[in-house]
Amino acid sequence: MKINELLGKRYKEKPNDAKLKSHELLIRGGYIRPVSSGIFSILLPGLKVLKNIENIVREEMNVLGAQEVEMPLIQPKELWEESGRYMAINEELAKFTDRNNRGMVLAMTHEEAAVALARTEATSYKDYPFSIYQFAKKFRDEARPRGGLIRVKEFTMKDAYSFHMNQESLNETYKKYALAYDRIFARVGIPEVVAIQSDSGMMGGKVSHEYMLLTPSGEDTIITCSKCDYKANKEVATSIVDAKNPDEDMLPLEKVHTPNAKTIEEVGKFLNMPAFRFAKAVMYKPVKNDNRTIVAMIRGDREINETKLAKILQEVPQFADDAAFENSGLVPGFASGYNAHNVRVIVDKSLQNEKNLVTGANEQNYHIKNFNILRDLPDAEIADISSVQDGDRCPECGAHVIINRGIEVGNIFQLGDKYTTPMKMFYTDENGGLQTPIMGCYGIGIGRLMASVIEARNDDRGPIWPVSIAPWKVSITSLASKNADISTETEAQKLYAEMQKAGIEVILDDRQTSAGEKFADIDLLGIPLQFVISQKTLEQGKAEWKIRATGEKGLVDLSEVINMAKNWLDKENTKLIEIADKSKGLD
Amino acid sequence: MKINELLGKRYKEKPNDAKLKSHELLIRGGYIRPVSSGIFSILLPGLKVLKNIENIVREEMNVLGAQEVEMPLIQPKELWEESGRYMAINEELAKFTDRNNRGMVLAMTHEEAAVALARTEATSYKDYPFSIYQFAKKFRDEARPRGGLIRVKEFTMKDAYSFHMNQESLNETYKKYALAYDRIFARVGIPEVVAIQSDSGMMGGKVSHEYMLLTPSGEDTIITCSKCDYKANKEVATSIVDAKNPDEDMLPLEKVHTPNAKTIEEVGKFLNMPAFRFAKAVMYKPVKNDNRTIVAMIRGDREINETKLAKILQEVPQFADDAAFENSGLVPGFASGYNAHNVRVIVDKSLQNEKNLVTGANEQNYHIKNFNILRDLPDAEIADISSVQDGDRCPECGAHVIINRGIEVGNIFQLGDKYTTPMKMFYTDENGGLQTPIMGCYGIGIGRLMASVIEARNDDRGPIWPVSIAPWKVSITSLASKNADISTETEAQKLYAEMQKAGIEVILDDRQTSAGEKFADIDLLGIPLQFVISQKTLEQGKAEWKIRATGEKGLVDLSEVINMAKNWLDKENTKLIEIADKSKGLD
Repeated sequence: MKINELLGKRYKEKPNDAKLKSHELLIRGGYIRPVSSGIFSILLPGLKVLKNIENIVREEMNVLGAQEVEMPLIQPKELWEESGRYMAINEELAKFTDRNNRGMVLAMTHEEAAVALARTEATSYKDYPFSIYQFAKKFRDEARPRGGLIRVKEFTMKDAYSFHMNQESLNETYKKYALAYDRIFARVGIPEVVAIQSDSGMMGGKVSHEYMLLTPSGEDTIITCSKCDYKANKEVATSIVDAKNPDEDMLPLEKVHTPNAKTIEEVGKFLNMPAFRFAKAVMYKPVKNDNRTIVAMIRGDREINETKLAKILQEVPQFADDAAFENSGLVPGFASGYNAHNVRVIVDKSLQNEKNLVTGANEQNYHIKNFNILRDLPDAEIADISSVQDGDRCPECGAHVIINRGIEVGNIFQLGDKYTTPMKMFYTDENGGLQTPIMGCYGIGIGRLMASVIEARNDDRGPIWPVSIAPWKVSITSLASKNADISTETEAQKLYAEMQKAGIEVILDDRQTSAGEKFADIDLLGIPLQFVISQKTLEQGKAEWKIRATGEKGLVDLSEVINMAKNWLDKENTKLIEIADKSKGLD
Repeated sequence: MKINELLGKRYKEKPNDAKLKSHELLIRGGYIRPVSSGIFSILLPGLKVLKNIENIVREEMNVLGAQEVEMPLIQPKELWEESGRYMAINEELAKFTDRNNRGMVLAMTHEEAAVALARTEATSYKDYPFSIYQFAKKFRDEARPRGGLIRVKEFTMKDAYSFHMNQESLNETYKKYALAYDRIFARVGIPEVVAIQSDSGMMGGKVSHEYMLLTPSGEDTIITCSKCDYKANKEVATSIVDAKNPDEDMLPLEKVHTPNAKTIEEVGKFLNMPAFRFAKAVMYKPVKNDNRTIVAMIRGDREINETKLAKILQEVPQFADDAAFENSGLVPGFASGYNAHNVRVIVDKSLQNEKNLVTGANEQNYHIKNFNILRDLPDAEIADISSVQDGDRCPECGAHVIINRGIEVGNIFQLGDKYTTPMKMFYTDENGGLQTPIMGCYGIGIGRLMASVIEARNDDRGPIWPVSIAPWKVSITSLASKNADISTETEAQKLYAEMQKAGIEVILDDRQTSAGEKFADIDLLGIPLQFVISQKTLEQGKAEWKIRATGEKGLVDLSEVINMAKNWLDKENTKLIEIADKSKGLD
C-alpha cells in the first residue's frame, strides 16, 4: 500500500471528545470514524489490525477444537422469549417489528441462537462435548457509549459456546478457554491482561472470569493483593476489614439530640466523631413475596456494594420510596435498624466487632450513641455487603489490597443450564434417557481489544503496534531532496517492490510532503519497523532503520534491508509466541 | 477435521419446503439452518465455503486497487434522509427507535454510509479516484424470502463504492470491476455467468450490468440472442417485433356488437380472430401534475412491460381505479384509446405497422374492427412498452432471441451523482473550486453466490464444489471390516496426519458406520478428491481415489497419495485460474 492511496486523513490535533488515548489515536490515525453515537466505520488501517487480531483468535479457537459458525444478528423475538431474556432485558435490547408485524430483536449476544442451532444437531451423547464460535456483529443499545471503541453499540465479538454432559467436562473445556485467552492476549501484545474472578460462586456453583487490562483509563475497578495472587472485580471482591475499636467496653445506649444534623458529616461534626464510628443505614424497597423494608447497615466510612446485596436479596435492590418508609418506624435522615419494625436488617460484617457506634434513633432530630450490633440488634443478618476499599486486607493472605482500574477485554462464564433448561435442549444418553446439557460461553470484543492494545502500547506520536497485529509491519519513507533527487524515489520504489515480493506487509510513503509530516504519519500508523531513504543515506549505499517501540536507530546496507526486516520480524513474532507458550491459564 | 466432530446432521431426505436444489442440498449437507423466514445460521461447512468465496473476492478487489473498510449495519435515520431513501423505500427498510427515541435503520446497502465516510476524507482532487469495499451484513425486509440462501433478509454482501471526478474515470473503473467480476465467477467455478445490460441508458446516461447465472431455477428473465452477443434483462430488453399483417389495405372502421364479450379470448372467439389481431388497452392512473388517465395499448398477443412504461411516465404505473375512468369516456371491458378524451395514449411499437385490428369501442358491448393506429389515433405516442417474447428478433442482429431464466449473482452500477449531490459531497479541484464527485457501486451477495454454485454444479448426491471453494479439498474414508481391522484405521489416521502436515485441507471419516452412509456424507459435503482405504485396498498397499465431479476412480500407492492429491489440486486450481485469465470484462 502506498500511503497516498490510503483513504482517511490523519490529524495532529486531538479530537475534542476523545478522553481516552485509544479513542484519540484511532481518530487521529485514520483508523475509525464515527457514524453515530457508539457506531463507527472502520478504515483500512483499523480493519487490518482487527483482521490480524481476529486471525489470532481464530487460530487459538481452532486449536482448542472449537468450530466456527455464523449466527444471525436479527432474530425473532420468540427465541428470546424462550430464554426469558426478551422480558428480562429492557432498553439495551433493540427491538423492531417487521413488515409482517412480527417482533424481531437485534442480538446483543448469541446464547439463544447457539442453543437453537445446537439443540437440533447435537441430540446424542456421542455429539458431546463440543464448542462453536463466531465473529459476529452484535448490537447493544448502550446508555452511555464511551471511549471510541471501548464501549460501543454495534460491535464484532468473538463469542464461543461450549456444550457438555457434565460439570467435569465443562470444567475441562473452561480451562482450555482460559489458556487460549492467555495465549491470545500474549499474542496480540498485552500479556499483562489478568484473569479475575467475577463471581465467587454464590449463584449455584457457577464460575466466571473477566480478563482485565489494568490501566487507569479503565471503567472497572479490580482488587488485587499486594502479595499473593488474589484478584477480583470490585463487584465480588471480598476483604478483611479490621475493626477500629474492637476492644472498647460496651457502654450503655444513649439518645442524643442532633437538631437538623442528618448526614454522617453533619452529625460527625456535631458530635466530633469520625465517620468510622457510625453505623450508617441505607433503606431499600421490600423484595418479592416479603413486605419488610430492607435496612442495610454498614460502617460509616464504607460503601454498600449493591451487587453483593443483590445476591442476598436475589433481586436488584431499589432505594426505598415513601411507601417503604410507612409503618416501619423508619424516620428518613435519622433511620437505622434500631427501633424499627417490619424491617429486614442486613448488617455488613464491618460492623460486627465495632463498639459504641452512633446510629439513627428513628426519631426526628435524634441519634443514638454506644450502639453495639451484637447487643442491640442480635437478630440482624450479618453478611458481606461492603465494597473493598483502601486499607482493607486480602481475604486469602491478609496483605494489603491494591485498588486498580481495568478494561474488560474478555470473559468466560460457566452458564450451567441457564439457557438449555428453559429452551428445552436435550440429548439422549447412553441408556436412552433424555438429558439437558450444560453450557459455557466465552467472549472477546475484537474492537475493544484493538483499543485496549493502544491503551497499553502508545506514546504521544501514536500507537505502538506489536508486529503480530500491526496494519503494516514495515514502512519505507523516501525523503526527496528539494532538488527532486530522482534516485531516492527510485530506490524506495525498488525496495518497496522487493519487500512485497518477499511477502512483507509494507507501506510506502513517497509523497511530496515534509519529512516531519511523513514521520508523524508513519508513527500514527504505528509501524513497528521503519526504513527511511534519503540522499544522505543513499550516498553511503544505506537506508536508516528505526524501531517504533524502542526508538533504536541505525543504518543498514540497501542490499541487506530485506534480510534485516525478515529477521527482525521473525524475532519479534517469536518473542510473542514464546510469551504465549508460557501461559498457564487458570492453573 | 474429523467428520464425527462436525456439528450438523446430514439428511438423505429432501426438506419439504425446499424448491431449489441449492436450498435442498444446503440443508441436507448441514451447511445452513433456518432461524426465521429468510434468516439462517451457518454451520462450519457452509462457513468454510463462504470464506473461500470471500477470499477470492477480496483478492480480486485488492488487485483492482479497492481498499477494504467496514461500515455499520445500524445507522441513524438522518443519513437516509439526506439521500432521500428514508422516505423512498418503504417496507423493505427495517427501522427502529433507540432508547433515546432516535430513529435508526438497518442498512440494506451502504451508499449513504460510503458517502458519509468518504466526504470527510476525500476532499482534494489528489484523493481521486478511489474505491472502498467491505464484506458487511445487510438487512432487507423481503416480502418473500425464497430458495434458502437465494433470497434472504439478512445477508453478507461484498459491496464496493468508487468515487470519481469525471465520467471517463468512472468508465475506466467500471470496466475494471467488470473484469474482476468475470474473474471472480470463473475462480469460484461458474465462468458461465454472463453480464447483461440492466439499463439501456434512458435514465440520464447511467449504465448498469447484472451478472446472471442462467438456470431454469432463476427468478429473473433474461433475453439472449441466438446468434450475436446481445443480452439483457427482460425489464430492459428490446427486440424487433415483426408485424403480422403489415401489407393489408386499411379497411374502414366498423363498430361490431360483442355482447358480454370483454376479454380478448371472448371477443376473439366471438369474431373468430386470433389474439395478435387485437389492440389491447391497459389503463393506469394519471401521473403527478397531469390529470389525464394513461391508456397503454399493445398487440393482443403481447404483455406490457411496466418497467419500460415507468421510464416513460417517470413514475411507477398504478392500475386505473374508478376515479381514473370517470370523465374519460373509457368503458371498462370495452376500452381503448379511440373515442376517449382527457387521456394520454401510449402505443407500443408492436401496433405501429399492424393493419385492421380489433379494439374497444368505449361503448358497452361494442368493439371496433379495422382499427389502424396511424390513421385512427395519429396523435398517440409510439414507444417500446412491450416485454420481449418468444419469436421476437434481436435488436442488434435480427436473429431470434432466446428467453432464459437466471439468478443475479452480482451487479455493477454507474450511480453518477445520485447520492453525492443530495448528500453534499465535494472536493476541491486543481483551481480551488468545489466539485461534486460521481460514484459507481458494485455488489456481490456472498451467500447467494454459494447457492448459485450449487445450482450450477450438483448431482443427486450433493454439491460438486470446485476445488477453489470446497470446504475441504480432500477426504479420507476408512472402511473398517467387521472384524475391526485395526490397520485400516491406523493407516487412515496416518494419512490424515500427513495430509494436514502437507497443508492440504482434509476431512477424515473414521466413524463406525456403514460404507453407504460414509460415501453419502462425503458427497453431500461435495469433497472434490476422495480417498477410500479398505482392507481390500490395503492388501495391495493402495488407497482408492475418486473424483467427485467426473466419477473417475482408480488405485494409488499409499506412499503416493499425498503427491497425487497435491498435483491434482494444483492442476484443478490452475485450470480455474486459466479460465479466469481469459476473462474479457466488458470488452
